[in-house]
Amino acid sequence: MTEAWLNGDAREGLDTPAVVVDLDRMAGNIGRMATAMRDRGVALRPHAKTHKSIEVGRRQIAAGAVGLTVATIGEAEVFADGGIPDLFIAYPVLPFGPKADRLRALAGRCRLALGLDSVEGIEALASTFDGSETPRVLIEVDTGGARSGVRPDDAGALARRAADRGLHVVGIFTHAGQGYAGPDRAPAAAAEEVAGLVAAADALRAEGIEPEVISAGSTPTAVRSAQAPVTEERPGSYVFGDRQQTVLAGNPAGFDETVALVVATTVISHGTGGGFLLDAGAKILGKDIAPYLVGHGTVLGYPDAVLTRLYDHHSVAELPAGSAGNRPGIGEVVFVVPNHVCPVVNLVDELVIAQGGSVIDRWPVDARGRNS
Amino acid sequence: MTEAWLNGDAREGLDTPAVVVDLDRMAGNIGRMATAMRDRGVALRPHAKTHKSIEVGRRQIAAGAVGLTVATIGEAEVFADGGIPDLFIAYPVLPFGPKADRLRALAGRCRLALGLDSVEGIEALASTFDGSETPRVLIEVDTGGARSGVRPDDAGALARRAADRGLHVVGIFTHAGQGYAGPDRAPAAAAEEVAGLVAAADALRAEGIEPEVISAGSTPTAVRSAQAPVTEERPGSYVFGDRQQTVLAGNPAGFDETVALVVATTVISHGTGGGFLLDAGAKILGKDIAPYLVGHGTVLGYPDAVLTRLYDHHSVAELPAGSAGNRPGIGEVVFVVPNHVCPVVNLVDELVIAQGGSVIDRWPVDARGRNS
Repeated sequence: MTEAWLNGDAREGLDTPAVVVDLDRMAGNIGRMATAMRDRGVALRPHAKTHKSIEVGRRQIAAGAVGLTVATIGEAEVFADGGIPDLFIAYPVLPFGPKADRLRALAGRCRLALGLDSVEGIEALASTFDGSETPRVLIEVDTGGARSGVRPDDAGALARRAADRGLHVVGIFTHAGQGYAGPDRAPAAAAEEVAGLVAAADALRAEGIEPEVISAGSTPTAVRSAQAPVTEERPGSYVFGDRQQTVLAGNPAGFDETVALVVATTVISHGTGGGFLLDAGAKILGKDIAPYLVGHGTVLGYPDAVLTRLYDHHSVAELPAGSAGNRPGIGEVVFVVPNHVCPVVNLVDELVIAQGGSVIDRWPVDARGRNS
Repeated sequence: MTEAWLNGDAREGLDTPAVVVDLDRMAGNIGRMATAMRDRGVALRPHAKTHKSIEVGRRQIAAGAVGLTVATIGEAEVFADGGIPDLFIAYPVLPFGPKADRLRALAGRCRLALGLDSVEGIEALASTFDGSETPRVLIEVDTGGARSGVRPDDAGALARRAADRGLHVVGIFTHAGQGYAGPDRAPAAAAEEVAGLVAAADALRAEGIEPEVISAGSTPTAVRSAQAPVTEERPGSYVFGDRQQTVLAGNPAGFDETVALVVATTVISHGTGGGFLLDAGAKILGKDIAPYLVGHGTVLGYPDAVLTRLYDHHSVAELPAGSAGNRPGIGEVVFVVPNHVCPVVNLVDELVIAQGGSVIDRWPVDARGRNS
């Protein structure tokens, strides 16, 4: 189990904790999603907040992605500087304060699209780009995620108002976050995405605006909602996979071939309770724990171990009574599949790239911490 | 409420989300803890994992701290390079792989102490420092935290074995993590710390080793356990305070004069649910939520707002039915007291330093991400 990730020499040379990406597994994920979208005739625009890596983004583009999705102006700046020519900031962008200058500069160096969901957003964008060419704007639609976005029926009026104010409205987008609610939720969430986008597209047409882009996306719903009238999908987590995604996909063990990233960590104590202590805590594993998960990660090779407690720099693995004899020894390097991969990547400066059990490279997490 | 943190000009010039530290509030925290320890005749060695900032560490030393506590070799390297001469890595240090060379180099450039709780740790340290002067070693004792450490009665045998192997055993330490279990738990946790340390000290003496250092520490228990035979306390979070600490201290509002750090964030949407959406998510607020807290932070000035959902880059604040009229407008900058401050600081590259409502400086988070 561990040899497949890193052989003995590679484990000994590693300074733990470290985030290890298996290149072949990642390539499999990138390829499978690209093929699925191509087969359905839908454009793929992966969300780069998961990997924050220019190198990973380039590989997604090389596999056929039309561009990348990002979460912040700062992430967009990093990827534009890294040569990714087509970027969509998939949140309502309100360029207050120093953000106005940054956004203007950004729009000048890539093909940029922005999310919008309010009248205040229209005014902020219109004044930011006053007298200059505006980026492409997509109206965000709430299709059940209950985060940002307007109701589908309200999308037409907002689009009309934006267009009248001089913004370049090209379509609509949504994120069905409700697909993460549990293992059986994805099919319904995908249907809600499509239904909401259909209604919103009709609302735009009623205002005389034909939506060129109709964008959906999340890893659980991506393949399911890739159908007419959706023109684009924006899954993110699929590139590395994680425990949450595998459980949502019906693998309760929290591990399968889609997991391409693990946290390598060393057992540093056995403590007094029959379990063991790892040198990986919340500052590398993150603290996400979906309601359908038990513990803070899957310890590969130790399926009975439950990461019950996560401290800042250490975690406690508990074992069933009587199984302390099977625990890893102090000094052993083990691999943990994190619950949710996105925060993990954001906690480290580099990804250790492995292939065939050897470390072959290290890639910087270029957009780490670009929160604004 | 907001003016006290940042005046209008400072808010307009800020690129949100950002971590803002009020210098006078922080100085109050540093001074109060230093005075409390001085009054009790106990040395103060603050845990620097909270702030990860050389500048903050220097101010703690200037106020009378004898040195700093850190969580990893990497943090120790940063503070040693920053001129802090006396450091304690308060976890079992097992210098496997590249860590052996790093630890030897570190020991050569500061007065270093290390935690130890296993026979494997003794062997790893003995072979790392074979033939050279070893750093000071403290045996970790589990006094109820159930993380790392040996039982108090077992501390003597381990200390003897370490001394016989040539390690320089100077004492014992513990961390009563159980003090975080709830608002009424701190007094008992402090008593458990002291009782466990008394027993462990006796166990060392029975082996002919007089413990020079008897170290306890956590913010909830620090002042309470600062009594004989404890010689040193290692609180960390007190320097900035957070929502968790204020609630533990008996302030259910989650805010009082000990809170010196907030996340400044902009309202970017009103969504469809009567609440509001902030541009601060888990990637700056962290996801810690103690069982006795509701929501992911206190929104200053909006006491009825509950941060019910935290996404990677955004959070949703819900309001009681009928109070949407009192929500902040889109574009307004609000200040959120995070639940747990340590992970927040680790998510940003710099702290915005404010005084009297103005931004006066920016300090790097020097040891951010130094997980290994």
